[in-house]
Amino acid sequence: MSLTVVGSIAFDAVKSPFGEREKMLGGAAVHFSLAASFFTDVRVVGPVGDDFGDDEYGVLHGRGVNTDDIEHVEGGDTFFWKAHYEFDMNTAHTEDTQLGVFGEFEPKLSEASRSSDVLFLANIQPDVQRGVLDQCPDARLCGLDSMNLWIDTARESLVRTIAGVDLLFLNDAELRMLTEQPNLVKAARAVMEMGPSTVVAKQGEYGAALFTKDGFFALPAYPLETVIDPTGAGDSFAGGFLGYLASRNETSDEELRRAMTYGSTLASFNVEEFGTERVGRLSRGEIDERYSEFERMTALAGLPA
Amino acid sequence: MSLTVVGSIAFDAVKSPFGEREKMLGGAAVHFSLAASFFTDVRVVGPVGDDFGDDEYGVLHGRGVNTDDIEHVEGGDTFFWKAHYEFDMNTAHTEDTQLGVFGEFEPKLSEASRSSDVLFLANIQPDVQRGVLDQCPDARLCGLDSMNLWIDTARESLVRTIAGVDLLFLNDAELRMLTEQPNLVKAARAVMEMGPSTVVAKQGEYGAALFTKDGFFALPAYPLETVIDPTGAGDSFAGGFLGYLASRNETSDEELRRAMTYGSTLASFNVEEFGTERVGRLSRGEIDERYSEFERMTALAGLPA
Repeated sequence: MSLTVVGSIAFDAVKSPFGEREKMLGGAAVHFSLAASFFTDVRVVGPVGDDFGDDEYGVLHGRGVNTDDIEHVEGGDTFFWKAHYEFDMNTAHTEDTQLGVFGEFEPKLSEASRSSDVLFLANIQPDVQRGVLDQCPDARLCGLDSMNLWIDTARESLVRTIAGVDLLFLNDAELRMLTEQPNLVKAARAVMEMGPSTVVAKQGEYGAALFTKDGFFALPAYPLETVIDPTGAGDSFAGGFLGYLASRNETSDEELRRAMTYGSTLASFNVEEFGTERVGRLSRGEIDERYSEFERMTALAGLPA
Repeated sequence: MSLTVVGSIAFDAVKSPFGEREKMLGGAAVHFSLAASFFTDVRVVGPVGDDFGDDEYGVLHGRGVNTDDIEHVEGGDTFFWKAHYEFDMNTAHTEDTQLGVFGEFEPKLSEASRSSDVLFLANIQPDVQRGVLDQCPDARLCGLDSMNLWIDTARESLVRTIAGVDLLFLNDAELRMLTEQPNLVKAARAVMEMGPSTVVAKQGEYGAALFTKDGFFALPAYPLETVIDPTGAGDSFAGGFLGYLASRNETSDEELRRAMTYGSTLASFNVEEFGTERVGRLSRGEIDERYSEFERMTALAGLPA
């Protein structure tokens, strides 16, 4: 089984109450790839500039991620994002965004990337996402992430793109904004009417909720005493989620619940350190141990005798 | 087993996007009593004025709540609260508060109320709560709710009161405010150092989290397509929670998780209609059915084979 992710590859400058990094590997496709790599073969598609070198490739290769479809744009700069977090770590305060080579990104997937079973369209302009979708008509499962910017500025295109995918990952506020529906259950149903069979509402420190035609499942976030850097948590979640599903033959309710748990697990490790530092040296054993902790902390005693 | 609750008995005027009520039975002690009444004998302690009559007593007696310690203040008016909700139902916008007889409330518990196994101090000025606590030295279990107003204006008294109880119910923001700790896990630990062995973080539409010395448990809120009136959800939660515990001999981790589920169940019914309308005609069968739905919607598949 294999998985292709298309999205941003970046350098991030991040300051949080617990420290700072001036230039570290980041980007949605990177966080996603590393998280998914524990479960399946991953191919990452995205553009980088001249400043992207062996150290950065080393992090991806260290997790076995296939980088053949990373497009090196000569003379260009890699996407750069600078932000800080206050003590309320739920909101990133962006200070600078330099799109660099990402601004002209027109993904052209190799035959190998096109033939992956599972496809993830990380947050990019929805026309570009649909262009990728059109190149992968045979994917068994397509997931998509987006953001408030595109809901605001490219709603029609976004809705058309969403119609072509199986799973939508958005945070609560974005789901409400997209559907103009304040109630989350109704918002999720409205999204399912657009096309996707599965909607995942990302809820930050509260965890995530899963909506399908007949089902509902919710999982709290892993309770961490210290969150160092929440950047990439949503993409790590999606990576754990879709990486796990790519390794399985079916998308049953039971497998979707496991995918939620692996997604939450990867997100929880991601935020424990800056950037890719924690996930980069994570082991499958640590992941399964935390999965078991999720089982214990959500186990509900049956009706009393 | 029996349970005594001390707190406000009120008339509420509430407008939400789904309708309005000009004067309906409300108040923390009322919502708590009705929810707890499905599990144990409940005695409610609070003041009412001349405007409180047979209809209101009828709702409480309809659920078997003992009203002997309701104090009727001749010539006074019952506490009145007026508020509206926007489409974001998480915030009540208060328009009017008339304390009436509640402003001079000095609870004097009867021998019967003092000898209950379990005591709940609904949100009142913390000196008054401590006065009640002093009257009930033999209670097996004491729970307390409070609010941002007292954290702001009577912190020292509140902390002294908290030191004397076993369970604290506060919402996320209040826990952070009380402990000046942005991380919820650390905030809960800081509260446990003040005295309580159990802390329940109420998280509105996201559900609730339970912290004990060694344990963590979180439960999502029941996914409702329509929330009519969230007033009293927190007190209904505490009522289901402590009512259930009052009916059991122990406060094990398993029983606390059941209490969380009964609390969430009662809160979910409470918000389905205005004021006490839904819980007033609820049946134990409906409660246990929803409990089972909570079991299904939180069941986590084990590690894959």
